[in-house]
Amino acid sequence: MIKLYELAGKNNLIFSPYCWRVRLALLHKQVEFSGVDTAFTEIKDISNGEFKAVPVLHDGSFALNESFDIVEYLEEKYPLKPSLFNSNEGKALAKFIETWANTLHGDIAKMAIADIHDCLQEKDKDYFKTSREKFFGNKLELIQSENHETAKASLLSKLSILDTYLTKSEFISGSTPLYADFIVFGTLKWLIETSQAFQVSHFSEHVEKWYLKINQMYCGEK
Amino acid sequence: MIKLYELAGKNNLIFSPYCWRVRLALLHKQVEFSGVDTAFTEIKDISNGEFKAVPVLHDGSFALNESFDIVEYLEEKYPLKPSLFNSNEGKALAKFIETWANTLHGDIAKMAIADIHDCLQEKDKDYFKTSREKFFGNKLELIQSENHETAKASLLSKLSILDTYLTKSEFISGSTPLYADFIVFGTLKWLIETSQAFQVSHFSEHVEKWYLKINQMYCGEK
Repeated sequence: MIKLYELAGKNNLIFSPYCWRVRLALLHKQVEFSGVDTAFTEIKDISNGEFKAVPVLHDGSFALNESFDIVEYLEEKYPLKPSLFNSNEGKALAKFIETWANTLHGDIAKMAIADIHDCLQEKDKDYFKTSREKFFGNKLELIQSENHETAKASLLSKLSILDTYLTKSEFISGSTPLYADFIVFGTLKWLIETSQAFQVSHFSEHVEKWYLKINQMYCGEK
Repeated sequence: MIKLYELAGKNNLIFSPYCWRVRLALLHKQVEFSGVDTAFTEIKDISNGEFKAVPVLHDGSFALNESFDIVEYLEEKYPLKPSLFNSNEGKALAKFIETWANTLHGDIAKMAIADIHDCLQEKDKDYFKTSREKFFGNKLELIQSENHETAKASLLSKLSILDTYLTKSEFISGSTPLYADFIVFGTLKWLIETSQAFQVSHFSEHVEKWYLKINQMYCGEK
């Protein structure tokens, strides 16, 4: 069976945006898989250290990472299962959305970096704190407290494009969700699952409605 | 034959982003049409004052405006001609790109508002100057001179998403240009055709290459 190595915090919390993208892609494609909870510091043990980041997908002896590469692999391997793109333009839409959604990640990191730390397994905490404090040049608590409000405003401003779009379309991909939807959902799920302060109701109306619908369809949450 | 009423400045300059979108859509669809140069102050004379803005498309006795509505009409009326969307996801891509591209318009207006005024037919100048100075609360020359650099930086920052995307895809729509491409092209063509200061070479590498390719394919320019 396919194995999906996913970043996991304490209490089996799945929170990586890229892992959520691939998890929803597998659920959408109705391909059986088992998730393998993986700490940051356990990534080096997958495939003898072949990968620096998760998600990693193992399909028998074949292994690969990078969310878009994994999803293209699934689409090619299971052409008769529900499609993730439906068409060449659906893939183009997903690629544009991926480029756009990745611009939200910096805001989210600043909004919740200390909260993310609190969600981690004990064995990951030192690694995370050291690497992130070095990257941002500040203490985790200070990065979050000093930037939360401006980063939240920046995030919501960027999401206003999505809100406008969703006034006229039920999903990003049209009348049914496809991989373009899972990309943005994964990004926002990361924030919702980790942040102490930010809640689904802080999204604007149409983004909230869209988020809750996908959460219900794929994550079984109400 | 189909008539397309387009906003025209002096020397028959076509410069409205929305008119460019529809013009390229008609060219792509290989539907014969004649463009009707229209001044701002002549829009009230089309169809006995039915429309407040161009483009307006006349097809026999049928008339409509709003660029996306026109394009959907063309797609439906000429299903055997080259498609503008290719698929439902191609239409979703175009709608998302339209929402995104419309966020560029404020920057462009501020970058070139005085230059746009200089491009107008004499009979339009008073109307344009009065309405835009009222809207922005400042003289046209000052709006442009005080905002040009910051608006240019804002535009290029937003376009960085497109540049990143175009490192991996020849066109926005994939391997051939479709309506999603024409939307962004129309927006940028408006700036290029009117601004005295901004040139194609100011775009980042992949945006410039993409722009010049579409300009050559559809506008016959090198």
